[in-house]
Amino acid sequence: MRLRGRKGIRENLEAQQDLVVLDPKQYKGRWKERFGNDRPIYVELGMGKGQFISGMSVKYPEVNFIGIDMYDELIRRGSEKAKIAWAQKLEVEVEEVQPPNLNLALGNIEFLEECFEPGELERIYLNFSDPWPKARHGRRRLTHPRFLDKYKQLLNENGEIHFKTDSQTLFEFSLNAFAACGLQMSDIALSLHRDGVNEKHVMTEYESKFHSQGMDIYRCEVMVGREALRRHEQRKMEQF
Amino acid sequence: MRLRGRKGIRENLEAQQDLVVLDPKQYKGRWKERFGNDRPIYVELGMGKGQFISGMSVKYPEVNFIGIDMYDELIRRGSEKAKIAWAQKLEVEVEEVQPPNLNLALGNIEFLEECFEPGELERIYLNFSDPWPKARHGRRRLTHPRFLDKYKQLLNENGEIHFKTDSQTLFEFSLNAFAACGLQMSDIALSLHRDGVNEKHVMTEYESKFHSQGMDIYRCEVMVGREALRRHEQRKMEQF
Repeated sequence: MRLRGRKGIRENLEAQQDLVVLDPKQYKGRWKERFGNDRPIYVELGMGKGQFISGMSVKYPEVNFIGIDMYDELIRRGSEKAKIAWAQKLEVEVEEVQPPNLNLALGNIEFLEECFEPGELERIYLNFSDPWPKARHGRRRLTHPRFLDKYKQLLNENGEIHFKTDSQTLFEFSLNAFAACGLQMSDIALSLHRDGVNEKHVMTEYESKFHSQGMDIYRCEVMVGREALRRHEQRKMEQF
Repeated sequence: MRLRGRKGIRENLEAQQDLVVLDPKQYKGRWKERFGNDRPIYVELGMGKGQFISGMSVKYPEVNFIGIDMYDELIRRGSEKAKIAWAQKLEVEVEEVQPPNLNLALGNIEFLEECFEPGELERIYLNFSDPWPKARHGRRRLTHPRFLDKYKQLLNENGEIHFKTDSQTLFEFSLNAFAACGLQMSDIALSLHRDGVNEKHVMTEYESKFHSQGMDIYRCEVMVGREALRRHEQRKMEQF
């Protein structure tokens, strides 16, 4: 996407230090302290314009959310979106609002392990990640085994990865990567909104657009932590 | 499909007892004896008109193949197709040919365990199985966990299940069934012939038709036997 109007972005972001984290590495191991509570932390890797993470933070106030992106302009847009969403929910002015359970972090996912301690995260969302269609760029895909190994380290005993995309090739690659890494999948959907929009999940900007164009949205969950696997084991046959 | 001209079908089939098996239960535990050798046995459940199993038997003479269907008219058509395929390969007249590594069996997959001993099969092919789209018919789908449990019993230490379909809903159901049963998947394809026809696999009648209409063909392999899993473990990272 084209990112315009960069002048003044940094000043804007620096003025919102309760919501925006410009150097997430300094909070490694201290995110619960920063949020001021012990609630689980769900992270979206590549939050884009922030519709999903803002919507989720409003919908699930009992969870702490962190949206990460490497573009400061996206962090700025995300912060606007988040404040508008929370102002609506709390019925206050946008200027007065402070989303209590959301942080937007400027960071490169390549260095994720420098931002979080092992076990510090409970869920990782990957939404409409760059498919990197050329085979020689396969290592950059966020579901490549080298990233899955990192996620496994960072997730806690309830850890799960929730992945959705419109890209058939990325989804195919990802299913094979999860399988090759011995990860337990569940709730695999090859057309998430086949029977109408699935309201259980907040839609991303891309998702709204692609779904309205009649494209399939692919989704799957991956159980990583010991407790997540145990719960999956108990309920897995209910669907049959 | 409409099945016409049933008159005389039984007589036709009874006259081909080297190729056609009208009562497969009598060979339970004795299929190697029937084939006269110790080669692995690959079975197609629901062989339809027989293009796939005929083509496979010609392509892989070192394997014994059994095609199963519950309709005698399909067994008859399959026997014609098989003889034509083998006559072409051997450059003899159709009347003179006897496919050496192929049997076509009349049988109901519900009673599969009455036709084969545990460990008697090395591979099961499920090609374009009936998707049974209504939820209440889910138990009839050939990838339902109740069937997967049977297949696990019947497959040997090299055992694999190879599944393809044009049905997005059946493929979705099946991936979830494989995952829920803790089965190791590999080679998942959401559009098997995306980059042109994949010559590695013999096409079925449905596959040729649907592919020519631009539809996606879904495919996946499932490693069941101990040795199949070990080989998968060794090569699984090569794709990344």
